[in-house]
Amino acid sequence: MDHMSTSTVDSFVPYSDEYSSNSLDLKERIYAHIRPDLKRIEEEIDRLLTTSVPLISVVGRYMLGSGGKRLRPLLMILCARLCGYRGNRDVSLAVVFEFIHAASLLHDDVVDHAEFRRNRPAANTIWGNPAVVLVGDFLYSKAILLAVDYDSIRILEVLSGATTKMSEGEVLQLVHADNLEIAEQEYLEVITRKTAVLISAACQIGAIFGAADPVREKALSEYGHNLGIAFQLVDDTLDYTGDVRELGKPVGNDIQEGKATLPLICALRNGKPSENARLREIFSADTVRVEDFAEIRDLVIRSGGIDYTLNLAGEYVHKAKQALRHFPAHPTRDILRDIADYVLYRRM
Amino acid sequence: MDHMSTSTVDSFVPYSDEYSSNSLDLKERIYAHIRPDLKRIEEEIDRLLTTSVPLISVVGRYMLGSGGKRLRPLLMILCARLCGYRGNRDVSLAVVFEFIHAASLLHDDVVDHAEFRRNRPAANTIWGNPAVVLVGDFLYSKAILLAVDYDSIRILEVLSGATTKMSEGEVLQLVHADNLEIAEQEYLEVITRKTAVLISAACQIGAIFGAADPVREKALSEYGHNLGIAFQLVDDTLDYTGDVRELGKPVGNDIQEGKATLPLICALRNGKPSENARLREIFSADTVRVEDFAEIRDLVIRSGGIDYTLNLAGEYVHKAKQALRHFPAHPTRDILRDIADYVLYRRM
Repeated sequence: MDHMSTSTVDSFVPYSDEYSSNSLDLKERIYAHIRPDLKRIEEEIDRLLTTSVPLISVVGRYMLGSGGKRLRPLLMILCARLCGYRGNRDVSLAVVFEFIHAASLLHDDVVDHAEFRRNRPAANTIWGNPAVVLVGDFLYSKAILLAVDYDSIRILEVLSGATTKMSEGEVLQLVHADNLEIAEQEYLEVITRKTAVLISAACQIGAIFGAADPVREKALSEYGHNLGIAFQLVDDTLDYTGDVRELGKPVGNDIQEGKATLPLICALRNGKPSENARLREIFSADTVRVEDFAEIRDLVIRSGGIDYTLNLAGEYVHKAKQALRHFPAHPTRDILRDIADYVLYRRM
Repeated sequence: MDHMSTSTVDSFVPYSDEYSSNSLDLKERIYAHIRPDLKRIEEEIDRLLTTSVPLISVVGRYMLGSGGKRLRPLLMILCARLCGYRGNRDVSLAVVFEFIHAASLLHDDVVDHAEFRRNRPAANTIWGNPAVVLVGDFLYSKAILLAVDYDSIRILEVLSGATTKMSEGEVLQLVHADNLEIAEQEYLEVITRKTAVLISAACQIGAIFGAADPVREKALSEYGHNLGIAFQLVDDTLDYTGDVRELGKPVGNDIQEGKATLPLICALRNGKPSENARLREIFSADTVRVEDFAEIRDLVIRSGGIDYTLNLAGEYVHKAKQALRHFPAHPTRDILRDIADYVLYRRM
């Protein structure tokens, strides 16, 4: 990896958890910092989607141009920077994570028969399942090809280990489909594999690319792991409490798709027998009407399912920020801390 | 790569194309040579399909245990051996190619709504599209993970280059679906990407693993490329002339799926206007009845479409064997030559 390492920031600075912030300030501060990186990521994605097969470019651009948060590539870039990387060769490696993420969303949409994503018709409703499966395969292959270019077996080891665990997680989620009796532990296993593993790999590979020592590599891998779990926990509450316009997909999606997430698991744990019978009845129905969903949502909120899930997310955010204690004070460390905090406040 | 190289066989032996053989002898000779390798491949596939997610093992074993020819892993092993490799670390790398092949078949079956493969219901008809898409993703990820273990960027470069071209080819084939006016050149481009690229990569990676020099690496890549095209050309004739029991899937499959392959392209090129009108009518119908297919098959045979395609396959087999001239006489070279010849004679 041809980059200059400027990691002279080795002194340990104790980490304070009293850090807090207003949510809007937080968002503005993060964006002020990452705007140039976001621009580089967008340009690189566009460049890499130019292929000799137009359908790939069209479906790829639709999927990858549709307002994603670019969380994974940003984290890779920030982690590399925190470890001392100062060049611009980071961006193609960063895009690898957005390609893998997009490939998995495309295949998810086929698996879930999704109709909407990010306020627009899901790609499969426009181009059909065959094109979406195959363009997903292309994005995944292209991601590996891009990563190979970095000439690092270690990076490829972490990356392919992550995608293998991810795909096992997707199958595991499928096995648990329509299973309301999934235990909290099994649910955490599913979201670890389906979300946290790739975010963790993005952070760890940022560290490897930034030539971090093993302690810092492990710290950033843990940061990503905990952030990823928190991110998915919040996501799963938003499916009950979110705003359909901000989310870009209908709320109540998970129940429609037979996914019992932690808010619902918790409601069932705390519910009275009559309430639980009703939950089970609605959950196992073929179609969930708007009023049925409203009923479930009220039960989930009343039972403390949302609070419990958000509290747990808060604990993972805390752990994520704790992992940063291995790094000295640095503007990039602050932004990674801000991003962890923002995960709790986000509304989309 | 930890192996002993015993490549003392460096003297150039002129290659004779007068070699010919009785088809049954050919098959027996090939099997006598490869039986121990086949056994190692089968055992390794079974070992690698043991995962923590039972559905993956079940679908994977169904797909990978169902009488495949193991052509790709065998070629990788034979090419490594021809280049001097004598250890047993070749087998996991060989299985990589069977995993990628199986992943692509699983996704193909979803794309084509296939009902049968190898005399049994296609996996998607048993476990549904979601499981089949996701297990395909797993096999693909696992293949990359296995290859990473060989610690060779060069191998990963060839492998991920191949899978990227393959997935482009799959999309290209989809774009041409239901297009009877596809040109011979476009058809060859599709079969190159969808079949020849992976077979070529298996042979080239066998050479790299066997520590071949660049000339021999290129020669085996060309051997695989030409063999792969010949293999697919013969496959596309068998879809018209094959025996349903030997093929394990209905003949006439390609027309049902809207695929215009070379025998049909050729029939259209040589046909009278009235015959071509009839071809177009049947090809574009929603369902192709048995008697319609019989009519098309007769036209294809009468127009010389089968002969033309088999002749072309013969030319590619010749080119494949020519590529072996870079190697001295050696039992493994003879088997690679036998396999090339057998591609023309096979009935399944």
